[in-house]
Amino acid sequence: MKSEFSAFIDSLQNEITSALEKVDGKATFIQDNWERPGGGGGQSRIMQNGAVFEKGGVNVSKVNGTLPDSMKAYLKVDHGSFFACGLSLVIHPKNPFVPTVHANYRYFELYDEQGEVVDQWFGGGQDLTPYYLFDDDAAHFHQESKTVCDRHDKTFYPKYKEQCDRYFWNTHRDEARGVGGLFFDYCRPNEKHSLQQWYDFVTDVGRSFLKGYLPIVEKRKKTPYKQPHRQWQELRRGRYVEFNLIHDKGTLFGLKTKGRIESILMSLPPVVQWHYNVEPTPESDEARLVSVLKKPVNWI
Amino acid sequence: MKSEFSAFIDSLQNEITSALEKVDGKATFIQDNWERPGGGGGQSRIMQNGAVFEKGGVNVSKVNGTLPDSMKAYLKVDHGSFFACGLSLVIHPKNPFVPTVHANYRYFELYDEQGEVVDQWFGGGQDLTPYYLFDDDAAHFHQESKTVCDRHDKTFYPKYKEQCDRYFWNTHRDEARGVGGLFFDYCRPNEKHSLQQWYDFVTDVGRSFLKGYLPIVEKRKKTPYKQPHRQWQELRRGRYVEFNLIHDKGTLFGLKTKGRIESILMSLPPVVQWHYNVEPTPESDEARLVSVLKKPVNWI
Repeated sequence: MKSEFSAFIDSLQNEITSALEKVDGKATFIQDNWERPGGGGGQSRIMQNGAVFEKGGVNVSKVNGTLPDSMKAYLKVDHGSFFACGLSLVIHPKNPFVPTVHANYRYFELYDEQGEVVDQWFGGGQDLTPYYLFDDDAAHFHQESKTVCDRHDKTFYPKYKEQCDRYFWNTHRDEARGVGGLFFDYCRPNEKHSLQQWYDFVTDVGRSFLKGYLPIVEKRKKTPYKQPHRQWQELRRGRYVEFNLIHDKGTLFGLKTKGRIESILMSLPPVVQWHYNVEPTPESDEARLVSVLKKPVNWI
Repeated sequence: MKSEFSAFIDSLQNEITSALEKVDGKATFIQDNWERPGGGGGQSRIMQNGAVFEKGGVNVSKVNGTLPDSMKAYLKVDHGSFFACGLSLVIHPKNPFVPTVHANYRYFELYDEQGEVVDQWFGGGQDLTPYYLFDDDAAHFHQESKTVCDRHDKTFYPKYKEQCDRYFWNTHRDEARGVGGLFFDYCRPNEKHSLQQWYDFVTDVGRSFLKGYLPIVEKRKKTPYKQPHRQWQELRRGRYVEFNLIHDKGTLFGLKTKGRIESILMSLPPVVQWHYNVEPTPESDEARLVSVLKKPVNWI
């Protein structure tokens, strides 16, 4: 399973970066390979200053070794060693009418002293963060997420959609980071789903990612915008930074376990603003976004 | 002591905001009064888009009530109620050659069930964050900090300077936020210093703040700069955001205890950039700043 999922994320990284380069038409991804002192490493692929994508990262990492203490406490285990691999992506488009997207697909194994697998699970998800809200876009992203979930288990979409709403919640602002999508974790072999079935599910979600996001990009990337739209986007990107640095478990986990900083923080938007106490004009598009983010919506 | 220190921070807020308005010459502070649902409140004073200061906040808060559980755990007590008041300021100048400054002066009381004071202490400090490093400026800021410390106890400056270096450390980057200054906490009445003596010390530091910072502003505010200087400043401001959202105890404490978000996050710079893996040109001014921040310096 280790090598099967590793091969999958490599192939998905190629597929996604090629497709994004094609849509962008100007910028290409640069690749940075890095090694983790404790074991393993990764390939970061980063695009900056594209025609469509202002900044984006599609990173693969495959790490292994002894569990750091912080990780043991987090996972509530005292096992000896681990293997983890995954693909993580965050895309920040330039045009304020194109939403930011994030996705992550990962696999984890824990070993006992003899090197036998004692636990293994998949996790991941994908979520959309618009700056201007088009209900159609949110509905499309959720519909694609539901379609792929339904192929595997009809209970998945409602459950993982709700977990996503709960996870990407900026508690200190009492608002959602965006319009959500899917979030699943600790998908272990059980009486209903074998490890292979979880693999089939997670890889199917990964393969469907572009179908959920690219049509939205194509539809909105030429929408004309002015400086105030751009400013609103940069202010809202501040919320994205707040979520990732204050609440996101993956980011904090990476920082606390001394992961590769530049690969972890590639998720931060390229240009961000914080002004004091910004209140959108009542009844404006900006005000509507904020009000919708106050409470999870059923987009389908 | 409560009322004495409360009156002091009110008066210091007036003194500092007046002086900053005078130096800026264009923008003025707006005042926002807020109430804390659990008890107390504050006066935030915010300046934006000044001629010299791009964004700044000089906030006073005086809060009281039952200790939230998170605060009990943090302070390692199970006492019933508390009073806390303080002045917090962060100033982000527009010109990349003028450093950002932060200061905080605070007083804390804990009460038992009968309302008797069972513990009380002062805390605070001040630190400087340059984007381009002028050794003279760092030395001046530290000299003023030392002068005021020495008036009270010759052991204060070396101790509080070192605590400042330790506190404002971006562990995930292995670098200092800036060139430091002073940081002190839990200054309780003891065999060497009475509560009144701590009051005298902390208020003396507060009153000397402008002497440490304003001469630097005056000296640098007209330095001509170009877009690359500005860009470097905005990139380095990213480190400021990272420190405040990932590590700063005051910020996290405020967010977790549901403090007033806009007053807490006034510390975030107005415009910030994150690019992937920025490496300054070797031997440049930018490279020198980064290398100096790798290890605390004795500026005097």
